[in-house]
Amino acid sequence: MDRGILIVVSGPSGAGKGTVCKELLREDPSLRLSISATTRKPRIGESEGVNYFFFDKQKFEKMVEEDQFLEWAEVYGNYYGTPKAFVESQLESGNDVILEIDIQGAMKARQKYSDGVFIFIVPPSMGELEKRIKGRATETSEEIKLRFAKAATEMKYISKYDYIVVNDEVNKAAHKVLAILTAEKCKVERNLELYLNIENVKE
Amino acid sequence: MDRGILIVVSGPSGAGKGTVCKELLREDPSLRLSISATTRKPRIGESEGVNYFFFDKQKFEKMVEEDQFLEWAEVYGNYYGTPKAFVESQLESGNDVILEIDIQGAMKARQKYSDGVFIFIVPPSMGELEKRIKGRATETSEEIKLRFAKAATEMKYISKYDYIVVNDEVNKAAHKVLAILTAEKCKVERNLELYLNIENVKE
Repeated sequence: MDRGILIVVSGPSGAGKGTVCKELLREDPSLRLSISATTRKPRIGESEGVNYFFFDKQKFEKMVEEDQFLEWAEVYGNYYGTPKAFVESQLESGNDVILEIDIQGAMKARQKYSDGVFIFIVPPSMGELEKRIKGRATETSEEIKLRFAKAATEMKYISKYDYIVVNDEVNKAAHKVLAILTAEKCKVERNLELYLNIENVKE
Repeated sequence: MDRGILIVVSGPSGAGKGTVCKELLREDPSLRLSISATTRKPRIGESEGVNYFFFDKQKFEKMVEEDQFLEWAEVYGNYYGTPKAFVESQLESGNDVILEIDIQGAMKARQKYSDGVFIFIVPPSMGELEKRIKGRATETSEEIKLRFAKAATEMKYISKYDYIVVNDEVNKAAHKVLAILTAEKCKVERNLELYLNIENVKE
């Protein structure tokens, strides 16, 4: 049984990460979505183990101490984190796991899961920006410059990722992510064990 | 206009490289197939520019001198080679080019096109072998050992490739190659120019 692949779907806010992930799960029900844990109170309609695992502060802090999070952060006084146990057990069982996460979380996850696949989702407006940059590289109006400046801050993280997917149409973006997953499974370095076994037999 | 990608479809003889390439062209007619040049005589049914470019020995040798081949080799007194001009012009026009080629040719192509995508097609019998190796790693019968030995020789080249695709069903294999192409186009390093442009604007 091959170990599953951790697919980190990340990128700036407004990129439509959540919509892409929903489409991924619809297209390939064999994928497993990592559920975050949080200490904030459930909102109406949210349920345990579906939207989040709702932990109290004490339990969360104990898990942090025990290194049970793949990554975690405090936002406005609440903790948010990705429990390792679920991700690990799914990968071990050969299931691919989707982790939808912001840029800071992805950078922490990268340290622990260097063999994960890190995908930077770019919002549709960035796609327009791309066209503009490509089409008129000499454009210098103030508005364009400001958009470039914001894009620059966000885009600096791109080099830390493996792939960039422009979310212009959600089903197209999801298909690209699935193609990336298929390609990753064909990568020679992910099949090294097989061919090393063959070489060992010869000696 | 983005430059096209050179997709090198290679692997041991009997892997079904040709069948996979035909299926690729059927599935995605925008792909361009690189046509080889040869000094051997056309066989019945073969035509110029479809199966091969048929050159005389003098012309071929002149082109070799002028470094006009991506790779070339002599086989049983005849020359075979991949003319650079076609591949280059197609890539420049933004078209992806399929190059079907044996292992030795692929190794030469790799030196000149390091940004090409090198795919090792494994024959279906190798797929069975894979299952056997994975399923019963302790198997030591003489027959298995001989098959391993042959596989070992061929498989040694795998580490020089980027991807391995098992050709168990030709349409599945072709879909994997197309997924690899999609994924490669999303790779961050193939989109660096875009985000470098954004960074430059900020400074």
